[in-house]
Amino acid sequence: MTRADQAPRRDVVVVASGGLDSTTLAYWLGTEGWNLTLLGVDYGQRHCTELSFLKRTAAVLKAPYVQLEISDFGKRLAGTALTDERVDVPAGTYTDPSMKVTVVPHRNALLLDLAVGVAVSTRAEAVAFGAHSGDHPIYPDCRPEFVKAYAQMVAVSNEGFLADGFEVLAPFLNWTKADIVRLGAEVGVPFSDTWSCYRGGPRHCGECGTCTERKEAFVLAGVGDPTEYIDSGQD
Amino acid sequence: MTRADQAPRRDVVVVASGGLDSTTLAYWLGTEGWNLTLLGVDYGQRHCTELSFLKRTAAVLKAPYVQLEISDFGKRLAGTALTDERVDVPAGTYTDPSMKVTVVPHRNALLLDLAVGVAVSTRAEAVAFGAHSGDHPIYPDCRPEFVKAYAQMVAVSNEGFLADGFEVLAPFLNWTKADIVRLGAEVGVPFSDTWSCYRGGPRHCGECGTCTERKEAFVLAGVGDPTEYIDSGQD
Repeated sequence: MTRADQAPRRDVVVVASGGLDSTTLAYWLGTEGWNLTLLGVDYGQRHCTELSFLKRTAAVLKAPYVQLEISDFGKRLAGTALTDERVDVPAGTYTDPSMKVTVVPHRNALLLDLAVGVAVSTRAEAVAFGAHSGDHPIYPDCRPEFVKAYAQMVAVSNEGFLADGFEVLAPFLNWTKADIVRLGAEVGVPFSDTWSCYRGGPRHCGECGTCTERKEAFVLAGVGDPTEYIDSGQD
Repeated sequence: MTRADQAPRRDVVVVASGGLDSTTLAYWLGTEGWNLTLLGVDYGQRHCTELSFLKRTAAVLKAPYVQLEISDFGKRLAGTALTDERVDVPAGTYTDPSMKVTVVPHRNALLLDLAVGVAVSTRAEAVAFGAHSGDHPIYPDCRPEFVKAYAQMVAVSNEGFLADGFEVLAPFLNWTKADIVRLGAEVGVPFSDTWSCYRGGPRHCGECGTCTERKEAFVLAGVGDPTEYIDSGQD
């Protein structure tokens, strides 16, 4: 028996990127009885192609799609490979120290704060994002300590204005990406309609940190990977 | 002996609006030995005229001025008088329940996040904002509990990326606005070059919550008010 059978539907604003994790999160929350609003943010990321994938997901899920533009912010951040064209996106895995250049400082707090503003304004009961355990080594704003501190901050920042029982949902926080792929396969995520690559080329590069992680996750999950990678042709 | 005589100068990103509080904050931090960057944010506020005042302050203080545009966000917030043209800015004082419509949900977290992102990227040692005790009754994100929770969240969100001793400064947190006016007079703030009015007309309206508070603060501080108010002519 799913939650949808037990309780009235509640509203959630999902911080989503068009990537595998947040797309699976959206599909899954829908099956769990949440009314979704998908929030995409153009923060000047070079892989903003991800947002066109997100828009398609919103259409498929019949969920309102809100896109906010804060690309000025990305332009002000020197030294992060995701928004500064002078810095190369490294190849490798997320455990490599070289991957630190892909940190966009304080990004998740900012994205979640935009979602919270929209949620409070529309009386939604939750915000959600797709951080998982593979993000922990490099990205401090994907760790359990962050989610806990963030939820506490939101509660005091909006005291008297939040919907009853307001939650910051991060259900994949201690999952691996392979776990997410397995769940995605269960809830029918069309994986070829998701975008991971940080390099933002016409196809997934297959060698940057997020492509490497994506490939591995499908293998570990035992799920066929429909992604077309530049380095290996069709998988 | 001021701090400037004792220690090397450190860098701070000040969330500033062109209003009386944040302008005084900027002047004062400068005298205390901080290198300032002033951050103005266009979040779709109807009183965005304040940012032209801020720009002037930055020029006078010879401080870099960064303006970020997130007006998409303001457009998404239904029901707040500061960004929704369909909602009137009420007259009265900040203790009136009617003043709740001037709350922009989660605004300070968002503005501070932009400052933190810039600060981390430039290795600045602090962010600062000008919340004071007069803001507490209506604005939860101006209260001491918020500042404490926000600082904790920033520490974990950016673990390993913050400058040593990074601080979230809110030195006026338990001050009255009259205290701020007194300090402003001491450090030479040209008060006529600050903007408070939420209505954003050609001159201060003299009757909205922030105009009422501004007028009272000058009276209580015993400092001459150079502001031209529409309702009373020149003060």
